[in-house]
Amino acid sequence: MAENKLWGGRFSENTDAFVEEFTESVSFDKELALYDIKGSIAHVKMLSKQGIIPKEEAEKIIEGLNQIAEDIKKGRFQWKRELEDVHMNIEKALIERIGNIGGKVHTGRSRNDQVITAFRLYLKEQIQEIIELLIKLQKSLLKKAEEYIDIVMPAYTHLQRAQPIRASHYFMAYLEMFNRDIERFRDNLKRVNELPLGSGAVAGVDFPIDREFVAKELGFSSIMRNSIDATASRDFAIEFLSCSSICMANMSRLSEDLIIYSSSEFNFVELPDKLTTGSSIMPQKKNPDVLELIRGKTGRVYGDLVSLLTIVKGLPLAYNRDLQEDKEPVFDAVKTLKGSIIGITKIIDGLKIKKENTEKAAGGFALATDLANYLAEKGVPFREAHHIVGKIVAYLISQNRELEDIKLEELKNFSPLFEEDALNLLSAYVVADRRKSFGGTAKERILQQINYWKEKLQA
Amino acid sequence: MAENKLWGGRFSENTDAFVEEFTESVSFDKELALYDIKGSIAHVKMLSKQGIIPKEEAEKIIEGLNQIAEDIKKGRFQWKRELEDVHMNIEKALIERIGNIGGKVHTGRSRNDQVITAFRLYLKEQIQEIIELLIKLQKSLLKKAEEYIDIVMPAYTHLQRAQPIRASHYFMAYLEMFNRDIERFRDNLKRVNELPLGSGAVAGVDFPIDREFVAKELGFSSIMRNSIDATASRDFAIEFLSCSSICMANMSRLSEDLIIYSSSEFNFVELPDKLTTGSSIMPQKKNPDVLELIRGKTGRVYGDLVSLLTIVKGLPLAYNRDLQEDKEPVFDAVKTLKGSIIGITKIIDGLKIKKENTEKAAGGFALATDLANYLAEKGVPFREAHHIVGKIVAYLISQNRELEDIKLEELKNFSPLFEEDALNLLSAYVVADRRKSFGGTAKERILQQINYWKEKLQA
Amino acid sequence: MAENKLWGGRFSENTDAFVEEFTESVSFDKELALYDIKGSIAHVKMLSKQGIIPKEEAEKIIEGLNQIAEDIKKGRFQWKRELEDVHMNIEKALIERIGNIGGKVHTGRSRNDQVITAFRLYLKEQIQEIIELLIKLQKSLLKKAEEYIDIVMPAYTHLQRAQPIRASHYFMAYLEMFNRDIERFRDNLKRVNELPLGSGAVAGVDFPIDREFVAKELGFSSIMRNSIDATASRDFAIEFLSCSSICMANMSRLSEDLIIYSSSEFNFVELPDKLTTGSSIMPQKKNPDVLELIRGKTGRVYGDLVSLLTIVKGLPLAYNRDLQEDKEPVFDAVKTLKGSIIGITKIIDGLKIKKENTEKAAGGFALATDLANYLAEKGVPFREAHHIVGKIVAYLISQNRELEDIKLEELKNFSPLFEEDALNLLSAYVVADRRKSFGGTAKERILQQINYWKEKLQA
Amino acid sequence: MAENKLWGGRFSENTDAFVEEFTESVSFDKELALYDIKGSIAHVKMLSKQGIIPKEEAEKIIEGLNQIAEDIKKGRFQWKRELEDVHMNIEKALIERIGNIGGKVHTGRSRNDQVITAFRLYLKEQIQEIIELLIKLQKSLLKKAEEYIDIVMPAYTHLQRAQPIRASHYFMAYLEMFNRDIERFRDNLKRVNELPLGSGAVAGVDFPIDREFVAKELGFSSIMRNSIDATASRDFAIEFLSCSSICMANMSRLSEDLIIYSSSEFNFVELPDKLTTGSSIMPQKKNPDVLELIRGKTGRVYGDLVSLLTIVKGLPLAYNRDLQEDKEPVFDAVKTLKGSIIGITKIIDGLKIKKENTEKAAGGFALATDLANYLAEKGVPFREAHHIVGKIVAYLISQNRELEDIKLEELKNFSPLFEEDALNLLSAYVVADRRKSFGGTAKERILQQINYWKEKLQA
Repeated sequence: MAENKLWGGRFSENTDAFVEEFTESVSFDKELALYDIKGSIAHVKMLSKQGIIPKEEAEKIIEGLNQIAEDIKKGRFQWKRELEDVHMNIEKALIERIGNIGGKVHTGRSRNDQVITAFRLYLKEQIQEIIELLIKLQKSLLKKAEEYIDIVMPAYTHLQRAQPIRASHYFMAYLEMFNRDIERFRDNLKRVNELPLGSGAVAGVDFPIDREFVAKELGFSSIMRNSIDATASRDFAIEFLSCSSICMANMSRLSEDLIIYSSSEFNFVELPDKLTTGSSIMPQKKNPDVLELIRGKTGRVYGDLVSLLTIVKGLPLAYNRDLQEDKEPVFDAVKTLKGSIIGITKIIDGLKIKKENTEKAAGGFALATDLANYLAEKGVPFREAHHIVGKIVAYLISQNRELEDIKLEELKNFSPLFEEDALNLLSAYVVADRRKSFGGTAKERILQQINYWKEKLQA
Repeated sequence: MAENKLWGGRFSENTDAFVEEFTESVSFDKELALYDIKGSIAHVKMLSKQGIIPKEEAEKIIEGLNQIAEDIKKGRFQWKRELEDVHMNIEKALIERIGNIGGKVHTGRSRNDQVITAFRLYLKEQIQEIIELLIKLQKSLLKKAEEYIDIVMPAYTHLQRAQPIRASHYFMAYLEMFNRDIERFRDNLKRVNELPLGSGAVAGVDFPIDREFVAKELGFSSIMRNSIDATASRDFAIEFLSCSSICMANMSRLSEDLIIYSSSEFNFVELPDKLTTGSSIMPQKKNPDVLELIRGKTGRVYGDLVSLLTIVKGLPLAYNRDLQEDKEPVFDAVKTLKGSIIGITKIIDGLKIKKENTEKAAGGFALATDLANYLAEKGVPFREAHHIVGKIVAYLISQNRELEDIKLEELKNFSPLFEEDALNLLSAYVVADRRKSFGGTAKERILQQINYWKEKLQA
Repeated sequence: MAENKLWGGRFSENTDAFVEEFTESVSFDKELALYDIKGSIAHVKMLSKQGIIPKEEAEKIIEGLNQIAEDIKKGRFQWKRELEDVHMNIEKALIERIGNIGGKVHTGRSRNDQVITAFRLYLKEQIQEIIELLIKLQKSLLKKAEEYIDIVMPAYTHLQRAQPIRASHYFMAYLEMFNRDIERFRDNLKRVNELPLGSGAVAGVDFPIDREFVAKELGFSSIMRNSIDATASRDFAIEFLSCSSICMANMSRLSEDLIIYSSSEFNFVELPDKLTTGSSIMPQKKNPDVLELIRGKTGRVYGDLVSLLTIVKGLPLAYNRDLQEDKEPVFDAVKTLKGSIIGITKIIDGLKIKKENTEKAAGGFALATDLANYLAEKGVPFREAHHIVGKIVAYLISQNRELEDIKLEELKNFSPLFEEDALNLLSAYVVADRRKSFGGTAKERILQQINYWKEKLQA
Repeated sequence: MAENKLWGGRFSENTDAFVEEFTESVSFDKELALYDIKGSIAHVKMLSKQGIIPKEEAEKIIEGLNQIAEDIKKGRFQWKRELEDVHMNIEKALIERIGNIGGKVHTGRSRNDQVITAFRLYLKEQIQEIIELLIKLQKSLLKKAEEYIDIVMPAYTHLQRAQPIRASHYFMAYLEMFNRDIERFRDNLKRVNELPLGSGAVAGVDFPIDREFVAKELGFSSIMRNSIDATASRDFAIEFLSCSSICMANMSRLSEDLIIYSSSEFNFVELPDKLTTGSSIMPQKKNPDVLELIRGKTGRVYGDLVSLLTIVKGLPLAYNRDLQEDKEPVFDAVKTLKGSIIGITKIIDGLKIKKENTEKAAGGFALATDLANYLAEKGVPFREAHHIVGKIVAYLISQNRELEDIKLEELKNFSPLFEEDALNLLSAYVVADRRKSFGGTAKERILQQINYWKEKLQA
């Protein structure tokens, strides 16, 4: 008989040592310890309130649990692998401390609803923290946008200079992207924030429990309506990993931009020394490692998402042990995401734009569109205007000259419609401010957005 | 010079034939044709309203576009690969039909904001249709739940019989899961439902356009606030693929269950002949192909998600041609998802539960928990009660007997606390109805849920 | 100046504490410690042989490294996060122990070629161990195949009973699958087994080093021919993760089969108590957790693969810090794969087939194909024969009877060609042995395969 | 009864129209048509040789199949969705053409072994073509390496200039990477190149077939030894998708490099007009679309891999309909991979390096390592030498000067060990040629590699 197991009654052999090692989860799910205790305390309060266990016993259990929590926080709790998981470790410790009545903590509860309750409590808190961090990042971006309102730089498409923009416009683009990330996490939170406890192993509980009370105690905004679903579903966690993946993707794009902008060739951006690292061999190197790591860690979070999607594919109802593998991807994504947001916020706070370089790059051929528009406004069909300016560009490239270098008479050779005022367009600042549509890069439009966000973020 | 291209001005050679073939998208993005035309019409109306183009020209353009739309619907529009994409195909056709003023459709617009507008219009409509299909599926599940309220079956954990449930409880679990899918799609829709048009190539537009007007015309609920973000971001599409993946995962679980339940060994469920297929070799075969395909197609949608996540990883701002690859994964997921929902709905509508088999399986050792609870209620610590019943189970298995076969005196050998009333527990119906907690499988609780959903779904 | 860094010369600030934490790798890459030391010792021997450093200094360095290795093995080495990675930790410790000449270990070497050398040494060894474990698994499968040669069971397609097979045939199918896994790992090993050391940071080394010597010392079978490639490529690791993913997929299928076969409904297989676990609530439960975890952990390894694929996507040459993220997925896959192979081998060794159940399931309608073949052999076109037998099946199902129950006169009602000998076909053993094609399930064919493998595996 | 189906005998209803649509595969698996016919012809030849069907019938069948093949090649074969798949379409057409004996083509065969045979024949051929294309790409890279042996450029790490290399060295790095891709495809081919035909539906065949003969006819190098494995396994296809993913990853890195090198800021590379495209709005744009698409399509192939990995996860033996989903990912990957290799080969053939720009970038601080090595050779511990040169770099940056600008007396201020000959190191060509280790960038070493590959590729 498996004497060392709580469930050993029908078993005639002890569990194989390898199996114990292979199936244990306490090495990682101890991350849930305090959430598990929180859940247990609420559960015990309810049991007492309902008269399922005597008040004095409930008080003893709660006191015992609080002591264990204290020990865990202080790092002096001894985790034991042979006790399988965080929940058994805590329950066993409780019984050791307060005696057999400790076992009553498990009245009207199963490990299946217990574990998912702790997991949801954990994730609720993490999502809230992630949202806070993202708001800080937005504020940093907003501050840079204010700071750099009078710097122009090129916007790129296909990594080719496209049109001049104000640098602020660039930062505000990411602010918007991270805003949708925040929205997604908030939407996810609604589905995390539901109480599964009270579902038992799969079919519900036959004690007269009060799930409303527990939900209130634990701050869950609603109660899951089906006990099978409550114990078997992990879509809320996949959704979290998906939100995290998209957020990492957004950060990977910002990282890529800044890595490129930090190259000697672009030289648009200076990162502070304290946020970069050097090389053991090459004395000149100053590497944007934080950005590279964020870009790389994007793969890590994608992998976490694929893991959990794979796990639930084709899994029959209800709880299967496969689901034990739901935790590590989530823990890993939480840690990676939080670190990456903090890292990128520091980078945004610390970076300096090298105005002389971005300004130069924002001019030249990046102004060509507006020359075509000039002709279009004079009645030339746009496709033809585009064609004429294309030829001007080819002409100047063949002479190794920039667009600002052109003379009026040369312009007139391509089209007699060009007049003196066409030359006014050969300025990145002028051109940027012509994009006056709502959402465009004209100074007035950017200021409109900055004000909108200052109010919204109370920044 | 690339004379055959609208953008050929600065080019000295024609495009390589392979490059034309490799870069074209019309073979798949023609799916967007009607959405593109819808977007163009709204754009032209606005241009006319703003006095950017004359009213008569606008009318001609709109008439031309409507005719093209008609041709497309009737399948008589000739798509040309050498015109690259759906947008160029339509614009060129417009110019052929109404002359050069057709080119004015592109005033104050770029392909970058045009394409993403059509894509969002498409996706809005698809998501709404998907939600409708999911609601139908919920109604089918609800109907089965009503129909099968008086059938018991075992709930499984670890694919081992766990506890008896009413079959309705099983169907309602999936109803809940699909409900979260619906919620996710609705949340996604908020982020799809934003107007990008008016952002130009990247920096905004220098015509006095009215984006509010266009948004209203096209039914967008808000307007994107940053032109770079509007043209470069695809997170709304990744989010859609993620919602789709989770929904497929849920369907893959239902499929797996029903495939297992359709095996000769379980024999819980009979699928209608018309929804199954046979074998070219084995005359006895009746295969649940639809379910298998849904389970398999889950991989397809996961793949679509990974595709788009990979594409945006590390992609610098703003538009890059990589983003042309955003469409096929979305089209594929839409088609797969809709087909799978329809298929599974048909299966649910058509399946019959074989009561005699599920009832038998729901009894036996699946009743063991309640025997332990019986002892617990008599004051035996649950862990000990569990142990005693574990031994009873081992004892009966060694004699190849079922739990219902046990006699009172035998029970008393294991614990003197067993009395006559313990034998009452040896019924799946009795035991199921003991799970009276909110969300449990007791008949009264299931009826409570059925009523809740009947009202909510107006079914 | 970043005084605490070896590369701090050009830096004016100390590294930010968060950045140190975020970028450190020693918390996981210490797994490479002994491989790193092995690589360093070979490198130093070569430096000494080439006269690049004096023999006595080389000896001191080697002695120092050996002592450090000893400390690491005994768990008494102090890892320091602020020293970034395993390599810096060891180098610093070396200098502390033997003084400044310890620094000469890095002569003619860069961290870029050092790290990838240690990583390849590690992976070489792991792949060899994995192959050994897979061969053990094959031997276990072979043993079961021998043991169960006289048991029939149904082969399933679509999880419907298809045709009777000998149980041995089932085990031999997996033996073949794992054999291709072994082949894949062996092929992978060829590409892991190449020496990168001597490539420097990216462009090669300007000391007169001898890479042949180092390769021989470390047991690498070839030397990488391009220094950029050697430091920047990780395809060998992705290939490993891909081989691992396929191997996990194969194990997930075996797990799924055995989970289904362990259900009460199938009841084909008995797993030993010591390899299963129970439930904290349900005394009757005996859960195949090891198999479920292997099936679940498949997702984990898929995730590892996706991680690294994502990381290298679009990464410019040569080394980028993103590549630091290559290690954890590989470590995780190695650990998961080894555990899973050991686990599944234990399960195979311990399982018992319940002959009475598989035998019964292998009969009945699973014999229908051969009845159709019987008619075909008498000249009925197969399609028609199939049709006739299909009708016999439908007829018996409607009467709730099995195929073996049919009488000759009944058969004759469906086709006058049925004779007495047709009834002989109504035996799973007879039918299985009719599949005499090479690779078929006839006893003689299986024995042929068993002998082939006994010789090949020397089992 | 499902009268319209070959397997309809036991069915009492016709198949639902939606189910027909949802389960059909002919819309995509017709890609296998000619391979299916090839397989059938070999099968029929064998049946005839073995006396299973008469010689005259075999000849008629083969003639009929050849005619059908001709019709398919000429695009005049009518595919019918209601016939489910390519195999049924062809068989039905055969029967229509030559009468009922056409049905004998299916003697001793099942769809399960038929379909996988056609699939393997297809993939064998595709892999061989892909290898040919990769060899062409290698030859293009080799040619560029020869052409650019006297051009220096910077090697980058962290996208920061690291050390000067000869441009040839860069191209040869990719040649090596693609060489491992070729090796992987060749290894994969071994596992694709095995005959499954003769395995029947799952358990083997009861006709006296000759699998050796069929293998020889079809050019398979070996015969699968287990019929269950042969019909149920798809690892060979996953392996192909994995090889394809790695190859795409390598191309995505080359694409990324060249996109960056084509930016105005780097301006290292000129792509021919005919391989680039323009913008509908911005006349100056010349976009590297082919490279961007290859980078983007990497996601597509990763998605294909994830699809098939997901499909087989947890799939019980043997054939399940899920496996029908194996084809589209493979077809998609084949098409994408071939297009991408052709595209990148064209780019390599057509690109021009702008020597004046790469040369300039290869100098400056990229030479700093060698200055440190200079001091090290004079006995300064490398770590200290590194530190000194780091300070020199900081000093020059603060004055906005480059390394070549430094004067000897300035150097001496940092270390008295600097002599006149130190200034010789301030040349990218000199420094590149100092990396003389095997695999390094010194001209003599590169020429050694070029010669090695010229011989190996016979180029």
